[in-house]
Amino acid sequence: MSHNSFGHLFRVTTWGESHGPALGCVVDGCPPGIRFRLEEIQSYMDKRKPGQSRFVTQRREDDIVKVLSGVMLDEDGETMITTGTPVSMLIENTDQRSKDYGEIARRYRPGHADFAYDAKYGIRDYRGGGRSSARETAARVAAGALARKVLPDVTIRAALTQIGKHKINRDNWDWGQVDNNPFFCPDAAMVPVWEDYLDTIRKAGSSIGAVIEVVAENVPAGLGAPIYGKLDQDIASLLMSINAVKGVEIGEGFASAELSGEENADEMRMGNDGHPLFLSNHAGGVLGGISTGQPIVARFAVKPTSSILTERQSIDADGNNVDVRTKGRHDPCVGIRAAPIGEAMVACALADHFLRDRGQTGRTR
Amino acid sequence: MSHNSFGHLFRVTTWGESHGPALGCVVDGCPPGIRFRLEEIQSYMDKRKPGQSRFVTQRREDDIVKVLSGVMLDEDGETMITTGTPVSMLIENTDQRSKDYGEIARRYRPGHADFAYDAKYGIRDYRGGGRSSARETAARVAAGALARKVLPDVTIRAALTQIGKHKINRDNWDWGQVDNNPFFCPDAAMVPVWEDYLDTIRKAGSSIGAVIEVVAENVPAGLGAPIYGKLDQDIASLLMSINAVKGVEIGEGFASAELSGEENADEMRMGNDGHPLFLSNHAGGVLGGISTGQPIVARFAVKPTSSILTERQSIDADGNNVDVRTKGRHDPCVGIRAAPIGEAMVACALADHFLRDRGQTGRTR
Amino acid sequence: MSHNSFGHLFRVTTWGESHGPALGCVVDGCPPGIRFRLEEIQSYMDKRKPGQSRFVTQRREDDIVKVLSGVMLDEDGETMITTGTPVSMLIENTDQRSKDYGEIARRYRPGHADFAYDAKYGIRDYRGGGRSSARETAARVAAGALARKVLPDVTIRAALTQIGKHKINRDNWDWGQVDNNPFFCPDAAMVPVWEDYLDTIRKAGSSIGAVIEVVAENVPAGLGAPIYGKLDQDIASLLMSINAVKGVEIGEGFASAELSGEENADEMRMGNDGHPLFLSNHAGGVLGGISTGQPIVARFAVKPTSSILTERQSIDADGNNVDVRTKGRHDPCVGIRAAPIGEAMVACALADHFLRDRGQTGRTR
Amino acid sequence: MSHNSFGHLFRVTTWGESHGPALGCVVDGCPPGIRFRLEEIQSYMDKRKPGQSRFVTQRREDDIVKVLSGVMLDEDGETMITTGTPVSMLIENTDQRSKDYGEIARRYRPGHADFAYDAKYGIRDYRGGGRSSARETAARVAAGALARKVLPDVTIRAALTQIGKHKINRDNWDWGQVDNNPFFCPDAAMVPVWEDYLDTIRKAGSSIGAVIEVVAENVPAGLGAPIYGKLDQDIASLLMSINAVKGVEIGEGFASAELSGEENADEMRMGNDGHPLFLSNHAGGVLGGISTGQPIVARFAVKPTSSILTERQSIDADGNNVDVRTKGRHDPCVGIRAAPIGEAMVACALADHFLRDRGQTGRTR
Repeated sequence: MSHNSFGHLFRVTTWGESHGPALGCVVDGCPPGIRFRLEEIQSYMDKRKPGQSRFVTQRREDDIVKVLSGVMLDEDGETMITTGTPVSMLIENTDQRSKDYGEIARRYRPGHADFAYDAKYGIRDYRGGGRSSARETAARVAAGALARKVLPDVTIRAALTQIGKHKINRDNWDWGQVDNNPFFCPDAAMVPVWEDYLDTIRKAGSSIGAVIEVVAENVPAGLGAPIYGKLDQDIASLLMSINAVKGVEIGEGFASAELSGEENADEMRMGNDGHPLFLSNHAGGVLGGISTGQPIVARFAVKPTSSILTERQSIDADGNNVDVRTKGRHDPCVGIRAAPIGEAMVACALADHFLRDRGQTGRTR
Repeated sequence: MSHNSFGHLFRVTTWGESHGPALGCVVDGCPPGIRFRLEEIQSYMDKRKPGQSRFVTQRREDDIVKVLSGVMLDEDGETMITTGTPVSMLIENTDQRSKDYGEIARRYRPGHADFAYDAKYGIRDYRGGGRSSARETAARVAAGALARKVLPDVTIRAALTQIGKHKINRDNWDWGQVDNNPFFCPDAAMVPVWEDYLDTIRKAGSSIGAVIEVVAENVPAGLGAPIYGKLDQDIASLLMSINAVKGVEIGEGFASAELSGEENADEMRMGNDGHPLFLSNHAGGVLGGISTGQPIVARFAVKPTSSILTERQSIDADGNNVDVRTKGRHDPCVGIRAAPIGEAMVACALADHFLRDRGQTGRTR
Repeated sequence: MSHNSFGHLFRVTTWGESHGPALGCVVDGCPPGIRFRLEEIQSYMDKRKPGQSRFVTQRREDDIVKVLSGVMLDEDGETMITTGTPVSMLIENTDQRSKDYGEIARRYRPGHADFAYDAKYGIRDYRGGGRSSARETAARVAAGALARKVLPDVTIRAALTQIGKHKINRDNWDWGQVDNNPFFCPDAAMVPVWEDYLDTIRKAGSSIGAVIEVVAENVPAGLGAPIYGKLDQDIASLLMSINAVKGVEIGEGFASAELSGEENADEMRMGNDGHPLFLSNHAGGVLGGISTGQPIVARFAVKPTSSILTERQSIDADGNNVDVRTKGRHDPCVGIRAAPIGEAMVACALADHFLRDRGQTGRTR
Repeated sequence: MSHNSFGHLFRVTTWGESHGPALGCVVDGCPPGIRFRLEEIQSYMDKRKPGQSRFVTQRREDDIVKVLSGVMLDEDGETMITTGTPVSMLIENTDQRSKDYGEIARRYRPGHADFAYDAKYGIRDYRGGGRSSARETAARVAAGALARKVLPDVTIRAALTQIGKHKINRDNWDWGQVDNNPFFCPDAAMVPVWEDYLDTIRKAGSSIGAVIEVVAENVPAGLGAPIYGKLDQDIASLLMSINAVKGVEIGEGFASAELSGEENADEMRMGNDGHPLFLSNHAGGVLGGISTGQPIVARFAVKPTSSILTERQSIDADGNNVDVRTKGRHDPCVGIRAAPIGEAMVACALADHFLRDRGQTGRTR
């Protein structure tokens, strides 16, 4: 069952609410002998954590991750080595302002999960969105950091390609730019445009959507599985599990509807290194659910944060019509912080499929 | 594990290759006491089966489904009643022309799974694509037909909204039209356009992509689960598992990237029937991964069939450069037959979540 | 979920009732490239099939297994090679005498699953016990035959050690005897005793229980997993899933309650071959849920067949008191045919753990 | 996958080593609206915790359980109410004396998991047995305490029936006695015998095995599932997952091998309350894998603690022959503390099957 778990051989279970004492994850099935330093995990946490710029929520969380099990310290007293048993990681919540949420305890914020949770469970931790809060994604990033260690040769990077109507110029794509601006933007020319645009949105107490692209390079051919364990299916599933995501694409995605078979076919020639050379990558690195050795390319669309200062019509838990205006500290573009989360989900999907493939075929690739 | 299974409480396992003796599925967990007639299952099979018009593959398969287990016949000698044990359904392959495929036994068709399967398994049933053939989807449709019976009040329908660059006019949407043309097209005005367009493509031995929309109405609020068992995530996963699908959207999908929080919020008022009334449905019926009672709206993009008559550059299993031209009987627009398959996948996702929800909350909804 | 499936990487799903058209299994996750001939599978089926001697049910089923998917024929036209996709195997039911069961359609046979199935499902395939019939185990044996091929160096054998109060003399244990008598008895001296004893029971229309021991030799060290995927736990679970099994032991089993720590410790010395040499095997080859390289030793107790000719008090589906006398063709000692089934379950558990271990640790062992 | 998880709808994942900072569990799928006080959970922890008498390990652990997620506090500020999201529970390790274990870091204690873990993972947390330590069972007891709340009408109790060769007189069985002695012994007359016996063993630095019986009363008929989700199978699996368990029985268990069909059949009459009245319970409350409404009776055998003061022959990680004598604080009869653990496992199995049954059949029973 997968209410709060995903993956099979690299299996991640997350727990915790936005305003409880802590949140965390348990990673079961991690191979033994994987070496990492806590600061490596932490560096990914820091990319996601709030308060990094004026364009994301001002909640202050250090998001310090603790590893509670599944590792031995190496003789240097610093390097952790996985033992093959479950790795439990915990992140304390420190900057909770639960009273910010008192007035929405019984009011359903439009676009939020409030009504749906009440419809399902009849009870809801309304403080900060409870379990539906994007704070849960901190645990994903911790798990993803470990997943990267399972696949040391694979590079997984994400970038924003669109905020509102403002799309990057793909000809300007430079991965080196991504860490030089608060938007994970690969197009330096777009940065000032997004800055101005988001300042306007932020000051208006409004919000806007975004598109994020994740690229995994150096993925060996042969990962994935027909028919319901397709690599692209599992990546799509995990990206879709991120808060506020409404669409997922692999390779050409929706644009493939307009392509002819001739245009879409990724032709091949034999490469000098004994591996096939693909002449294009419309497929996004996956055919028949199995990786081809080309870069895996996935994209996902994030809707605008539902927490806005403008009043919206709604109802409350007692069935009254009410108008709701969401105070609190929110992201004007929640898509920005989704970039490291998208990377984490792709990393977990790849680690899981790497182990699954190794189990079935015995190849280490 | 989910190599060839999906769902948890309504769990479907499929098996079979395109050119083996048969294919089928096992549905485990179906509630007992569900009554259906074989012809009801068959009617859904018939919507998907090949050879229905000149716009789909001319392979002739009757796709007669047999139910081998998990049912008792009612006294009328015709109505089947599920007993709660696994329902095994089998469809024989009858019109195989395996020799059509002899020459691609060791050649990798661009855009097909040939290379990826060989990279993974080191062996491949090349006849008709083997397991990667869209024939596997016959088993999904059989399972989906049973899933509908688990949710008798829910209506699940699919329609094509785009073929190539030709998009329907959504103002013309009429579900009544969908069964009146060979394209599952809800816009009568678009039918002749698509007819001409696909005739051209078909005669050129080419192919084209498409977009399909699936709508599930009367889904009760409360189905789905945070965080990795989201209803929209599971729908996206299952749609993405369909052959040739490259993108999936829920509600506004990628368009939500351009929306502001004000535009995107689905406002609510209390309805006269005690249920909330949503003033819009940008969310596509799901918030926080849980259904709201609004129609579930999902869309998916299907790439053009990779089997085309034009030669494309490729390699063979021995590492030689070759040029490949795919003969055989193929769909010029494989997206057409994807409509009943998309319905089936949504039906299965809903049936599974209905049972999962009932298990956890005890509510029958 | 595991209503009708077991295993994770070597995953088996069975379906079918005693008196339906057929029964079968789907094995998902089998490694590619495994070679076998159909007659090898069949030879295990034949060991289990009914009608082999006067001591088992006289139902006549050939139990011919067909492989419907997941394999390619080798050039010899006979050897099957797995492709890594699901292997579907089917066995037709041919000698059904459903009318034998007409009178128990609404009567609950004591010791049978009749009442429990009705209590759960409200409907029941009463013909031959439906899904609760031991005929389902034919599918297990087919799956087990394939599992053996995943572990070609491992030898898995079963023997009866007790029928009623008559226990074998373990000093006489000779595996060579097991196939020389209709009881899978490893003690030649016990065979005539059991023969006389079972003749008496059979003629009285009575039945008796038995104990079966399964031994797997040459199992590599390192298979299994803490804490809830222990190798002995999974073996116990699968043996307990066999019809009529009421107890399972690993190694010393219940006798270990009477041992001191000194007696129970399996001491070790370093062997000449670089592997540890254990001086005893109280553990039955498993420590902490993980194999040690010693033989895996498991035992299970099978209760007497509940189908007996003597009238027993019971009730019917309408709540009336009735007396039930079970006619039909039954096993006087159902434990006999449990021997090949026990082997199959152990084979499946080992194959699954072999793949799981290979996935997590990358070692092929 | 189930390396460190069990259950499907009431799904428990445990993590943590004996000498790490903490251990814990995540319970996913717990129904919403379940009310409990922390002290109720704690009361079960206290039954299992070490240092309760001179007959168990003298390690001092308070085993204070913290609930980190998945609950809201009721207005009384004390009652916790589950919200349907994962319940994470954590227990800190406080009395670790890791140096006790320095000398076994590279030596394999006979009967312990040391060698097997190294064979599998190539690395091992040797401190206190790491993950293979019985301390892990604290997390099970916490989960089991919550499971009981899912089934408020069911009573689940365990008692020791045998220590070494000393078996209780079942005619003396009195559940009222179980909490009056340090052995969970239901036979008051046996208490002084066990006291003397265990004092001798304890003083000799030796250890001894035991048998525990778990009885669940008031379990509704209809829980469980054919064929691989049998209730007795899942109970057997979970009992076998407890450290040091070597055998499991349901109902008559191994004694059923000696019974005739006439003796073994649990006859039925219609009871006055509309439920069937069983005249005996050889089946232990389960037929065909499904509960009958009779008490569920399971037994399990626990081997003697492998940690003994007498030197035993062994090897070390470098392949040298060594003699091992295990110091540290150990249980002379680890079976004693297994009683509350056995109860917890049965509680979890029943809670899971209750939810599974409700999901499939829609009945609340």
